Amino acid sequence: MKVEAKELIVEGKDKTVFATDSPDVALVRYKDQITAFHNIKRATIKGKAEASCKIASLLYGFLAEQGIPTHFIEDVSPTEQTCRRVEIIPLQFIVRNWIAGSAAKFLHVEPGTKPSNVIYEIRYNNNEAGFPIINDHHAVALGIVTYKELEELYAMVAKVNDCLLKVFADAGIDLIDFKFECGRTADGKLVVADEFSPDTCRLWDAKTGDSLDKDRFRHDMGGVIDAYQLVLERLTKLKEK
Amino acid sequence: MKVEAKELIVEGKDKTVFATDSPDVALVRYKDQITAFHNIKRATIKGKAEASCKIASLLYGFLAEQGIPTHFIEDVSPTEQTCRRVEIIPLQFIVRNWIAGSAAKFLHVEPGTKPSNVIYEIRYNNNEAGFPIINDHHAVALGIVTYKELEELYAMVAKVNDCLLKVFADAGIDLIDFKFECGRTADGKLVVADEFSPDTCRLWDAKTGDSLDKDRFRHDMGGVIDAYQLVLERLTKLKEK
Repeated sequence: MKVEAKELIVEGKDKTVFATDSPDVALVRYKDQITAFHNIKRATIKGKAEASCKIASLLYGFLAEQGIPTHFIEDVSPTEQTCRRVEIIPLQFIVRNWIAGSAAKFLHVEPGTKPSNVIYEIRYNNNEAGFPIINDHHAVALGIVTYKELEELYAMVAKVNDCLLKVFADAGIDLIDFKFECGRTADGKLVVADEFSPDTCRLWDAKTGDSLDKDRFRHDMGGVIDAYQLVLERLTKLKEK
Repeated sequence: MKVEAKELIVEGKDKTVFATDSPDVALVRYKDQITAFHNIKRATIKGKAEASCKIASLLYGFLAEQGIPTHFIEDVSPTEQTCRRVEIIPLQFIVRNWIAGSAAKFLHVEPGTKPSNVIYEIRYNNNEAGFPIINDHHAVALGIVTYKELEELYAMVAKVNDCLLKVFADAGIDLIDFKFECGRTADGKLVVADEFSPDTCRLWDAKTGDSLDKDRFRHDMGGVIDAYQLVLERLTKLKEK
């Protein structure tokens, strides 16, 4: 499908979102830009846009197979996708199957610790508030969601985790943690409204423990694009099975 | 009952806790010391120990009337109480009926905002971790509590709030927010294991909005001991009714 980018909706760090001729459809254009630490560290990595876009597309497919509603419509170029326009809920949903990254610091535990339970977190997507970790009561008090919506959202988040954990495990990858946003459609349905990629998922090779995600950029480990392409290769093979 | 202070258990900011001849009983001695901002700001206020101890004692009484289990045994002097020795759960339970203090900052809302729901928070009592706000999943992952215990604890916390909200309302005071710790007795029962006083509760005069708690010290408003004594007077009158 040929879709033309109209006016800019959001200039994100890793993606740009445009309106299209259809009022219900947005065009998402992935960037070769990579950023970390709230945009303080930045670089351009050739091929990242394409790798991320293709990984995201494959993962949207796996989620759809499990009946998980997302805003994704289809790929329109190697670095562009169309998505349904939804009202974004200003919460970041974070799932931690292992404790690493910021959680290892603020819980004061060894990175790579496997907790007995899956950790679900929400962060308030508010720059002035400083993107704090909040809890359900805060989110309701802020008028962002109702308790009932949260229940539905957490059920969806758990389904996303079950699906992605298995997909990555089949690809020889441990899904350490990941984050994403959700949205409300015009008819009030709650849907996943964010992509999954090595930009948003912490991925460790199940055999070697090698980092296969943006941490390679964050911590100057090199081989960023190689890692993204390895993830893409393994997911592509899985899809072809 | 005459109880002698034996070896020191904890030298706290506002209280000192001693062992006694009985292995199950601790002696809590209130201090005239007042501290704020993680002990950075400190002063001595004559009469504060006695006012806090007496307020705490009255409030323990109101909680007992509602069947809420606490570690409190009895007053043994105007500034000393005996309490059951319990295993302290390293969580701070915070209840917010109105949004003020740190929550107003990190939620980026006007202090004094009344949310549609009561906000319950837990903080991880760990100095190295920096006392972060955490959620239930973090607390379980850290091995501090089980989900089942949390359910029981939150039910107790809600009962404490219902009781104290009413007591303070009857005394012409809005209970804005408060914090406390809980513990496990030797036979595994969950109990309130902390005092309630203007050190730990944010109290606003229902008519004037005047601050009647430690905020007077935090923000150099003066009249700290007058506020504590006013709270004591009003609660004493209520008890005598």
